[in-house]
Amino acid sequence: MKINRYEDISQIEREAKKDYIDRHSAFVHVDGPAKKGEKYKVKVKVGEEYLHPDDFDHYISWVQLWDGERMLAKAEFMAGALGSAAGQTEIDFYVVPTKSTMKLMAHAYCTKHGLWESDEVVVEVVD
Amino acid sequence: MKINRYEDISQIEREAKKDYIDRHSAFVHVDGPAKKGEKYKVKVKVGEEYLHPDDFDHYISWVQLWDGERMLAKAEFMAGALGSAAGQTEIDFYVVPTKSTMKLMAHAYCTKHGLWESDEVVVEVVD
Amino acid sequence: MKINRYEDISQIEREAKKDYIDRHSAFVHVDGPAKKGEKYKVKVKVGEEYLHPDDFDHYISWVQLWDGERMLAKAEFMAGALGSAAGQTEIDFYVVPTKSTMKLMAHAYCTKHGLWESDEVVVEVVD
Amino acid sequence: MKINRYEDISQIEREAKKDYIDRHSAFVHVDGPAKKGEKYKVKVKVGEEYLHPDDFDHYISWVQLWDGERMLAKAEFMAGALGSAAGQTEIDFYVVPTKSTMKLMAHAYCTKHGLWESDEVVVEVVD
Repeated sequence: MKINRYEDISQIEREAKKDYIDRHSAFVHVDGPAKKGEKYKVKVKVGEEYLHPDDFDHYISWVQLWDGERMLAKAEFMAGALGSAAGQTEIDFYVVPTKSTMKLMAHAYCTKHGLWESDEVVVEVVD
Repeated sequence: MKINRYEDISQIEREAKKDYIDRHSAFVHVDGPAKKGEKYKVKVKVGEEYLHPDDFDHYISWVQLWDGERMLAKAEFMAGALGSAAGQTEIDFYVVPTKSTMKLMAHAYCTKHGLWESDEVVVEVVD
Repeated sequence: MKINRYEDISQIEREAKKDYIDRHSAFVHVDGPAKKGEKYKVKVKVGEEYLHPDDFDHYISWVQLWDGERMLAKAEFMAGALGSAAGQTEIDFYVVPTKSTMKLMAHAYCTKHGLWESDEVVVEVVD
Repeated sequence: MKINRYEDISQIEREAKKDYIDRHSAFVHVDGPAKKGEKYKVKVKVGEEYLHPDDFDHYISWVQLWDGERMLAKAEFMAGALGSAAGQTEIDFYVVPTKSTMKLMAHAYCTKHGLWESDEVVVEVVD
């Protein structure tokens, strides 16, 4: 199956394409290294500079959080939960790392434009 | 089906029962009134004073966020995402209200002890 | 939270109410007793005599299968998977019983009319 | 992210690898062409000749059914629903096609061995 991937939109000329790529891409946001055995916040947000519709027939339906090939958690959204207006799907997961590194990645699914894979964010886990 | 509900644990004498009730109960945490059309953070946390196991055969598998009879979003967790140690499942949802009130409530599901319903948190939505 | 329950529609006079109750109700269909340790098919169907819309803003979003207070499995449907026409959400689960009885029950969620709980179907499990 | 794909196990020599590939692979089973606007059964089964464990720390957690880049439905299973014995996760979805072709594909997720993608099954839809 085709999995769409984020592309650096500063390298893209056409405005419509910048918008399309950015608004569908999941971004993993973390704040510095994690501590082993302690709860760690991982924000996943879909879109960085652009907004995605929240229409009944066109919305971000779900987001999954992966550490390498292992799924940690996922979130599912009903159309309308973002007020049926353009916006950015957002969710904060909390995980507790037990190994020395996490390789965080998110999948996001748009009901019209399929599956999108974020860049990987490598998190160092300190003792 | 039996749905378990939070009880005020300060009114419960037996320590084991306080622990059982508290560690399974979902709590909806919000920060003041919401603004119509603006993103609003809703934290759902399972357990307030006590911790729940995160064992493969005993963990909090999912949490749903409801506004009255309408489900807004849900999150699902894999066993081990909390480091396989006792802790509190936690998730921040972001919703955009469009009506004058939200009646937020969470369901949490423990793989050993079934479905738990939080108290309702009424959120005023201002223009 | 309000959980809607099936009512015997033969006892209901008003046609619109018969339709409303029936088309939202999940029904658990099984075929005789189960055998311990053997795969057993459990069909869940939403609606018996009436059809539910499959519109983007009004559809059956999910179905859960429970054995007493324990959830066994669930299924989630995207709007449009039933061709965007009125129909009956349907799913066959396969479970393997290990105890002497199953008390099967289904929850179904309509994006406009909330949560519905089926009648319980008691299945005898023979050796 | 690495997505594992089915390989023709008749071409694989090592028994352990045949078993590993087969027991993790989702297979889409259909029965002839579909009729436009009519309900059509799609069985997804994980494993064809081999069995996968249903242990608390090692089981098939979910299956998604896709038509090209569009997700139609998914099912999620709790560990133990297959009796905690080796078996084959199985689910029957029912969809109503509205176009002339469906390109059905399934994803399956093993809690130890990650994401697996089935071969695509092209279904002709007749009027």
